[in-house]
Parts: sequence; C-alpha cells; structure tokens
Amino acid sequence: MSRKINLNADIGEGHGAYDIGDDEALMKIIRSASVACGFHAGDPRTMHKLVTLARDEGVSLGVHPGFNDIWGFGRRRIQMSPTDLEYMVAYQIGALQAMACYGGVAVTHLKAHGALNNMAAEQEDYAMAIGRAIKTVDPEIVYVVLPGSQMHKAAERLGLRLAREGFADRAYEADGSLASRSKPNTVLSDPTAALEHTLRMVQEGEIVAIDGQRIKVEIDTLCVHGDEPTGVAVAGVVRKGLEEAGVAVVPLTDMDL
Amino acid sequence: MSRKINLNADIGEGHGAYDIGDDEALMKIIRSASVACGFHAGDPRTMHKLVTLARDEGVSLGVHPGFNDIWGFGRRRIQMSPTDLEYMVAYQIGALQAMACYGGVAVTHLKAHGALNNMAAEQEDYAMAIGRAIKTVDPEIVYVVLPGSQMHKAAERLGLRLAREGFADRAYEADGSLASRSKPNTVLSDPTAALEHTLRMVQEGEIVAIDGQRIKVEIDTLCVHGDEPTGVAVAGVVRKGLEEAGVAVVPLTDMDL
Amino acid sequence: MSRKINLNADIGEGHGAYDIGDDEALMKIIRSASVACGFHAGDPRTMHKLVTLARDEGVSLGVHPGFNDIWGFGRRRIQMSPTDLEYMVAYQIGALQAMACYGGVAVTHLKAHGALNNMAAEQEDYAMAIGRAIKTVDPEIVYVVLPGSQMHKAAERLGLRLAREGFADRAYEADGSLASRSKPNTVLSDPTAALEHTLRMVQEGEIVAIDGQRIKVEIDTLCVHGDEPTGVAVAGVVRKGLEEAGVAVVPLTDMDL
Amino acid sequence: MSRKINLNADIGEGHGAYDIGDDEALMKIIRSASVACGFHAGDPRTMHKLVTLARDEGVSLGVHPGFNDIWGFGRRRIQMSPTDLEYMVAYQIGALQAMACYGGVAVTHLKAHGALNNMAAEQEDYAMAIGRAIKTVDPEIVYVVLPGSQMHKAAERLGLRLAREGFADRAYEADGSLASRSKPNTVLSDPTAALEHTLRMVQEGEIVAIDGQRIKVEIDTLCVHGDEPTGVAVAGVVRKGLEEAGVAVVPLTDMDL
Repeated sequence: MSRKINLNADIGEGHGAYDIGDDEALMKIIRSASVACGFHAGDPRTMHKLVTLARDEGVSLGVHPGFNDIWGFGRRRIQMSPTDLEYMVAYQIGALQAMACYGGVAVTHLKAHGALNNMAAEQEDYAMAIGRAIKTVDPEIVYVVLPGSQMHKAAERLGLRLAREGFADRAYEADGSLASRSKPNTVLSDPTAALEHTLRMVQEGEIVAIDGQRIKVEIDTLCVHGDEPTGVAVAGVVRKGLEEAGVAVVPLTDMDL
Repeated sequence: MSRKINLNADIGEGHGAYDIGDDEALMKIIRSASVACGFHAGDPRTMHKLVTLARDEGVSLGVHPGFNDIWGFGRRRIQMSPTDLEYMVAYQIGALQAMACYGGVAVTHLKAHGALNNMAAEQEDYAMAIGRAIKTVDPEIVYVVLPGSQMHKAAERLGLRLAREGFADRAYEADGSLASRSKPNTVLSDPTAALEHTLRMVQEGEIVAIDGQRIKVEIDTLCVHGDEPTGVAVAGVVRKGLEEAGVAVVPLTDMDL
Repeated sequence: MSRKINLNADIGEGHGAYDIGDDEALMKIIRSASVACGFHAGDPRTMHKLVTLARDEGVSLGVHPGFNDIWGFGRRRIQMSPTDLEYMVAYQIGALQAMACYGGVAVTHLKAHGALNNMAAEQEDYAMAIGRAIKTVDPEIVYVVLPGSQMHKAAERLGLRLAREGFADRAYEADGSLASRSKPNTVLSDPTAALEHTLRMVQEGEIVAIDGQRIKVEIDTLCVHGDEPTGVAVAGVVRKGLEEAGVAVVPLTDMDL
Repeated sequence: MSRKINLNADIGEGHGAYDIGDDEALMKIIRSASVACGFHAGDPRTMHKLVTLARDEGVSLGVHPGFNDIWGFGRRRIQMSPTDLEYMVAYQIGALQAMACYGGVAVTHLKAHGALNNMAAEQEDYAMAIGRAIKTVDPEIVYVVLPGSQMHKAAERLGLRLAREGFADRAYEADGSLASRSKPNTVLSDPTAALEHTLRMVQEGEIVAIDGQRIKVEIDTLCVHGDEPTGVAVAGVVRKGLEEAGVAVVPLTDMDL
C-alpha cells in the first residue's frame, strides 16, 4: 500500500489564440505537469506561462512530446523512422529546457502524448527511440511509462529512471492497456467513480477492467485530465480523496523512483 | 590589423527531402556554423547531421534562429510582440542545445537569420528580445551583431559577449548596412573581389561602400554563404587568402571577445 | 437611410481539437459567414462544418483568407511579395470553393483576416494583390472593403463587385479606420452601445469617432464578432434592433452591390 | 497492344527557397503533371509556376494530394479518420483548381502522393475517401490507381473515371505492388532497363517481377520520376523509345478512359 503518490496532468495544450482546459485551476491540484512543446499543441508563449506556473505552484515540470501534427492534436498514429522520432523528441526536450530557464526550474520527467504514447507502449522501436533521446539530452529525466509496456522495458534496458503511470479517470482493458476513448464510459467523468478506481489502484494495487477482471498494477504517478469538461472537478476530488485516505500527493521528484 | 579572424556560415538549411547548399564542403572551410532550427529552415535530423559535422570538423556551433515561416525561408519581415519573439528565440536555442548533446558540443553563439537579423539590426525591441533570450537560456552564448546596429547596442546593454560580423561576399551601403540582394552586384560571386573586400575589412578595418565611400569597421567574424552557387568556391578562396596573408582563421570560441 | 443591410462575422476559426467562439449560435444571427481556410485558423474539417451550417441557415458563404501564421492567429503583419500574397489568397479561395461543394453552395464574398485586412486597407500593393486573386479565380466574388481604403480603390480599379463594411462592435478613429484593440473601450461589449452605434451608421450614415468627431460613412455590411465573450449577445441585440427599426437583415448576395 | 499511352510525373515538389528535381526539363517530356499542393510539398508560388508550364507545354494537369507532413515529405504513413482524409484531399483539389485559373487550364486527374498512395492502394477506407473527395468536388476528375488495388475498386464502385498506372522506373513485387525503395535495384536508373520494362508493360501487358515471375497488367498511364538524379534522362529515353516503337505518348485527357 502506497503512502505517497504523484498526481500529473498533460497541460499547456493551447497555442496562440487557442486554449484548452483550465491550466491555472489544474496546476493548483496536480503536483507534476507535462507541458506540450509546439508540435501537437503548445507554443513558446504557452510553454513560458506553464513554466512560470510550475514554479509558483511547486509543481515539477515534465516534457510532453508529441507528433508534429497540430490538426490531429497528436492523436493520429504516424509511422516514422525511429531515428527521426528520437531526434524529434530530443528537440522538444531541449525546447522546454530553454523555456524552463524562465522559471528557474528543471525538466525532470517525460511523458509522451497521445498516439506517440500509445505507439511507444506497443512498439519497442518507438519506446527505445524516446528512451535514447532522454539518455542523450539528460539521463536524469524520468521516463513516465505504462506498466509492463515496451516503454517500461525500454527504460529498464537503457538504465533510465522510470515512473509507472496509472490513469485516475480512464477505464482499462484486461491486458492493462487503456480502453479506447471511442468505447462508451471509458472516460470516468463521475468523481466518485474515479476516486474509487484511484484508491483501488493506489491502496490495493488493483484495477477492475471493463470486462470485470481484476488486474494487478503498481504505479508511481496518477494521470488526470484537464481537457474533458469534468476533468478539473474529477482531479480535485481525486486529490482530496487520496489525502483523506492518508496518501501524500507529491511532485514526481519526491517519489522514490 | 587583425592577426586572427573567425569565418562563419549559416548552415543546415535543408529539411526533410530538401537540401540547400553543400553543407559538407562548407563545413571544411568555415570555423563556426550557425544552424537553422526548424522554423525558417532545418529539422531535427538536419540539426543532428550538422552537430555531428561540427564536432568532426572542430567547427564551433551556433544557433541560427529565424521566423516561423518556411515558405518565406525566414526572409519575410514579421511584426510580432517582442515577448513572443524572445520566447521563440529561446525555444530555438534550447532545441539546438538538445541536439548538440549528440555531438558532445556546446552552442556557443547566436546569429539571427534573414529578416529577423535585419529587423533586429534596426529595431531596439527586437534586438533586446534576442539578447534577453540569450541571457536567460545561456548568458555565455556570444551574440553575433552587425557593428553599430541595435543588436550591438543591445548586447552591450545586457552585458552579453558579442562578435561584430562582416560579410565576405556582400556589398555594403555607406551607412554600414548590407546592400539589398535586390540591387545588382551586391552578392560578390567573384572570389577575387570577395577576397580583396575581405582583406581590406580584416587588415585595414575598412569597407568601400557601393557608392565608393570608405567606411571604418572592426569585425570579429566574417560571414560566407553556401546557398549561392558560387558560395563554397568564394569561401574557400577567402579562407586561403586570409591564411596566406598571415591571418589565422579560428573558431569563434578562440576569438578574444 | 438603408432599408436593408447585411450582417457578417468571421467564423470557423477553430481547428483540430481547438474551438473559438460559438459558431453554431452566431450562424443563427448573421446572414453571411467568412470562413477561415487553414492558414491563420481553420482546417478542412472545420470548413466542412461551416459550409454545411451556412447551407442549413441560409447564410451566404465567404472566404476569410489570412497570413500563414497559426501561432499569431493571423494578427501579425507579414511583409511578403504581393505576388506571393496573391497566390496565397487564390489558394485559400480555391480550398474553400472545394469544401463548399459539400454544401452545394457557392463562395460569394471575400473578407481578409486580421493583419492582412489591416495592411490591405493601407497598402495599394496588398489591396491589389487580393483583388487580382479574386479576379482570376472568380470575378463574381464580392470584395469586402473598409470604405475609402486602398481595398475600396483596388476593387473599383479592377472592376470588382464590392461591399463596404462597418463594424457593429468596434470604435473608430476620426479618419474612418478602426481604433486599435489595444486602446481602452474600443470593443463595444455593451449591446445597447453597439446597437446605438450601428443604427447611427445604418440609418444616418454617421459614426461618432473616439475623439467625438462625427464622420460620414456608407456601408453595405456590418461585422459582428464571435470571439469576444460578449460577441454573440451583442450580435443578437444588433440584429433584433435593426429589424425592429425596419431594416431588413439579409445575406450579402441579396444586397444591391 | 496499346497504340497510345500517357506519361505522367509528380512535380512541383519544391517550395519557398527549396527545389527538387528539374521541373522544367521533365515538363518537356511528360504529358501529364501531378502537382503537389502545399501539404507534403509545394506552395502557392510553385503551383502557379507548374500550372503555367502545363499550359505552355500542353501537359494535362492533375492534383497530387499528400499528407500534411513537410518534414516527412509525405512518405510517412499517417492514420487519420477517413472523413478527415476526404476533406483534406478535397481541400487540396480546390487549392490547385484555383491556381489552375492562372493558366486557364483544368485539373483533370488526381494521383495520391507517397504514403497516402500506398495506404489507399491497400485500405478500402482511404481509397474510398479519396474517391468521395473527387466525386464531390469534380466527378470528371480521373482517379489514377494502381491496377487491382483498393483505389481501383473504389473508383469503380463510385462510378469515377480511372486510369491504371504503371511505373516506368520502378521494380514490382509478384503481387503487382511496387517493390519498396529500401530494397536494392528497385529504382530503375538505367534507361535501357527502364525502357525494356516499359515496352513489355505497354506492348505485351506484362511485368517481370523482382522474383522473376511474369504478371499481367493493363495500364493507361506510365509514371516517371524527376526526383532521382537519373530520372529526367530515364524519362527522355522512355518517351523516345515508346514513340519509336509506334506508341503515341499523349496527355491523360486524350486517353480513352
């Protein structure tokens, strides 16, 4: 049973005149932020804003690299050479590191976005490409992975620090993968359901999959979302519920990884 | 009279399936390379290639930020808020710093590209924005400036290291600015003419402007170009001629700035 | 005194995962829609949605070309060759014409966006470039112009149909140009003030500029905005007020231009 | 045995400061041109140049839509919703139609680019999406298809005109698909070999696959390439050889489709 857990969210996904989610509200609830870097979302100004917010709120800062696909919001699978992918991820890490100088903070984790995260969970070549980018640019960066996935294995093979991620507001398949958003009821918009699901993951190390099977899981970080209308409310209830259950909610940098 | 000088070029301006100039040949002649970062030109793969070449050739590495305008190749003037500009430049510095890890080299100078360089020479707000980006991300980075320009003043005001740049293959106006490419004979494609112009700049501290006036100038670095068909040949003659005249051609990191 | 007037808005300015303004609500109020084409905003899916809405609501369809600058939302001035500008505008017209086939409707007007509209109001070369694009691609397209501007003159010189535009929710300078959004109180967010301003324009042919001067103006079309939080409410009041004052609010295609 | 055949090439794949292939030379050899539309390559200025060249050379004009992926040159497979794909293709058709007005010519065929062409050959959903875009925007446009592919079937199902394409300078697999460029000797850079392969296709309706198997094929149009260094030479020899063998080389609009 965990005594502490990290709460993270993907954030800074607006750009220019566009905004998605309520970054300011979410930054008061989460303890680690994964910031988009101008490829699937985000732009330098938004990155600057998030870096500053991260410093002000004591939230640890991570990079949220995605495919170069703004019309698809990084949710389209793109088959590219693993080398090109590696350099594209390295580029995004560096871009955020530069912006992080404005907050006097460091980039301490990496969480891949959308289709890139899904592909890297399944494909060894993509998982390793992301890992090599981390290893080259800053080997101290924590690789956030789906437990048991190719990313998990890649992080171990490369000797990288890793954080196993669970999703507070998403339903799971029996094989431990996320159930697709296209299926009904896979986004947990009811705060009570999300909290129950979360406490079971954190305290009992267990998930009830959408087919009713119980699967074992160990996690270091919990992901919440700000882009669903109900996301911030769910996140707030999850954090409060964890703390009331005696689980400290801490930055990823305070976890023992 | 200078005993040493730096020779630089803008480089890595291809991307994807596209190539411009003969980077490999030019990298054997120049001593400092300013690498495009994916905004007006370049992409992560090209940046990786140039970083590796820079290490192999002992060429010092600089960032060559430009406007976000690939169809215009960064040659269109864009009026943006100085703050947005500053963050956009910081972003590009960071992107190259990350790629530089692949070569185990550092980003040691910044040279703005095209319309951004021209605007920053004239406008205090743009010149200061670039300078602030340098100061925030890495205050050791040398700011390459047109002598006497707003960039020159901004670098001094911000206490940044600076390198005054002359152009080996371009004609000048009497006020010390570059003559526009749209005027005839402003690109010196004849190697002999370019060398004569260069030696006068380096050894006598003088330029003969297109109207015949002689102007005084002190420079630390000489720019050559690879995107003109004759560029590499001109660059080779200029380097050889300088060395034969007893002027050492060194990386920018070996100049006393 | 006008017996009928057109009410238009810029629309379809979301793309991918992003949305701006309440297009569905605004499309029920306006009679002509100017649709973004994927350069400063918009994407093919959003264009398809707006074309279908235009058909369903009986709203006439226009193209809203802008600079290729999504991070700047087309609000940054870009200096490009008039020829490049002309082709870029022609391209956007064609893109929307193709999407219009999905609604079985025609593209019947052009209204330039943001910085492009402002520059074309001032610069003959830009105004003529837009006009030549219209003339080449479809000379029946109505050129929406600021009265008295370079666009107005260009449309006349090229023999194009034109519509003189007034702004229902914006304050004016004494020279007939729009007061900058950066000045206080230049966006009329109070519906009563906007309606009073509108009725004076439509019924008396007069504007009270921000310095109190009265200027004469004749307009064919009134612009409202959906991107301000108060925009839809203002637009609704303006339309209702015009109709109650006996002014028919019609598609641009029903105006006598 | 064919008495006439079309010769086509993908063209206009430069943009801004970038050029690929020798468009002017190739346009004198081919009879139909498929022009990139600013997504994987090309820009409005390049499109304008090619449209004008097409008119001057009597070359029939086609649209060459690709994925929105300039760094990958449209050679990366992207999984997007068929509806989004359809609208993206429709958009590109319209963009070229507008530019075609500058040459007073029509867009008379569509040939998909790179990864999009490969995916549409294999996937019914992509093949149908492209077909629906044609059918909506201009049902007279000829759909260029790999014989026997999903594109071929989609064109038939939608009642579209179609042209079966063979490749003059590429080797084939025994199943009639193109052998991957990543295999050795799959690009026929020897003009004699390309001509022999071409004449066998055109005159005998037969291809010798890379494993030696003979496969039957009927084609209406032959593709040559300008982006390989040897492409223009091969194309010239192929055209001359066809004509010397008594086969007329005609625009696609003169084929009986």
